[in-house]
Amino acid sequence: MATRDRTIENLIERLHRLPGVGPKTAERLAFHLMRVEADEALQLARAIEQVRAAVKTCSRCCNLDAQDPCSVCSDPARDRTMLLVIEDPREVVRFEDTGYRGLYHVLQGRLSQIEGIRPEDLTTDLLLRRVAADRPAEVCLATNPDLEGEGTARVLLERLAPLGVKVTRLARGLPAGSTIAQVSRSILADAMEGRRPLSS
Amino acid sequence: MATRDRTIENLIERLHRLPGVGPKTAERLAFHLMRVEADEALQLARAIEQVRAAVKTCSRCCNLDAQDPCSVCSDPARDRTMLLVIEDPREVVRFEDTGYRGLYHVLQGRLSQIEGIRPEDLTTDLLLRRVAADRPAEVCLATNPDLEGEGTARVLLERLAPLGVKVTRLARGLPAGSTIAQVSRSILADAMEGRRPLSS
Repeated sequence: MATRDRTIENLIERLHRLPGVGPKTAERLAFHLMRVEADEALQLARAIEQVRAAVKTCSRCCNLDAQDPCSVCSDPARDRTMLLVIEDPREVVRFEDTGYRGLYHVLQGRLSQIEGIRPEDLTTDLLLRRVAADRPAEVCLATNPDLEGEGTARVLLERLAPLGVKVTRLARGLPAGSTIAQVSRSILADAMEGRRPLSS
Repeated sequence: MATRDRTIENLIERLHRLPGVGPKTAERLAFHLMRVEADEALQLARAIEQVRAAVKTCSRCCNLDAQDPCSVCSDPARDRTMLLVIEDPREVVRFEDTGYRGLYHVLQGRLSQIEGIRPEDLTTDLLLRRVAADRPAEVCLATNPDLEGEGTARVLLERLAPLGVKVTRLARGLPAGSTIAQVSRSILADAMEGRRPLSS
C-alpha cells in the first residue's frame, strides 16, 4: 500500500502530540504548514527554537521568562509585601491586566488525587521557604475556584499557617456581566455567602 | 505594564496563525511547548523544517510528496486508465485505504463564488491537458458531496465533455453503519434516487 512520505507522517505525529490536537487536526495543520509560504511555516519552527533557547523558569517565583530572576521578580517597582500564588504561568498576564503589581509564585500545577499530583510535585517547598524568608504582608492563594483548586488552597493554608502570615483567597461570586437568572446555583450560593455590607 | 517576553509572544502569535487555533489555544500550546522536554518541542520545529525542505507539489497530479513525480505517479503498478479528481492532497490516503490503485489529480481546492475561487485558481488547466494527453478510460470527479463540491464537479464536467472521456461521480447514499431513522432527509433522498437493482 502506498503510504505518505515519512517527513509528512512525522510532522503529523509531532503535531498530534500537542495537547488537544487529535489526528485529524494534526493532519489539517500539517497540510496547512506544507501549503503556506515556506517562510510562514519556518517562522513557527524558529519561534519554537527561540523560545526553547531563551525561556527559563524563574528561580524565585517559577514563572517562565527570558531572564532569571524574571522581569517581575527583578522589577524594583513591584510591591514585595504581596504574594499571589497561582497554578499556571499563563495566569500571570491575566493578573497583570487587572493592574496587580505585587509578586507571584507559580505552583506549576495543582494537587490532584486522581492524577496523583502531591505537594512535592509542585513548587510548594520553594513557596514555603520564600514566605519564611521574605515574610510578605499577604499571601493570596489564587488557585482556581474548583474542587482541586480549593483542595490545593486548603493544603497550602495548612502549611503556611505556622509561618503566621496573612493568607487570603480570591473572592467568589457573580461574574461581572452575568445575569442572576442564568448563573448556576453554586455561583449564586457563593455570591450569597460572600455578600458584603453596603455603606451609603 | 509588564508584558510577556518577546519570544513567548512571538510563539503564541505564530501558533495563532494556524487554521482553527484561537488565541487561548495558541497560548496553551505555547506554554506546553515551553514546559515539555526541550527535545520534544524541538522535534516539532525540526519536523516543520524537514517537511518544508523535502515536500514538493507533484508536477503531474499536484499531490504533495517528497519526490516529483510523486510516489503514486511514478509507480508503474498503478492503473493509468483511471483518474480520480480530488479537492485536497489529504484525501489521497483516504482513497488508498479503500484499495484504490488508479491515479489522482489534486485540484488544490474547490470553486466557490463566496470565496471568489475560480477555475483558474485551481489546477483545472493541468487536469484538462492531462486528460487530453493521457486519455484515461474514466475520470471520476470525487469532489465533496456538498454545494461547492457539486458545483465544482459540474464545471469540470462541462470542460471535460469536449474531450469525449467518460466522467463519473462518487455514489451518494446511506453511510455504512448509519440507521435510516437517524440520517438526514437529503441523505435518504440521495439513497432513494441512487437505488440499485438487486440480482439474486
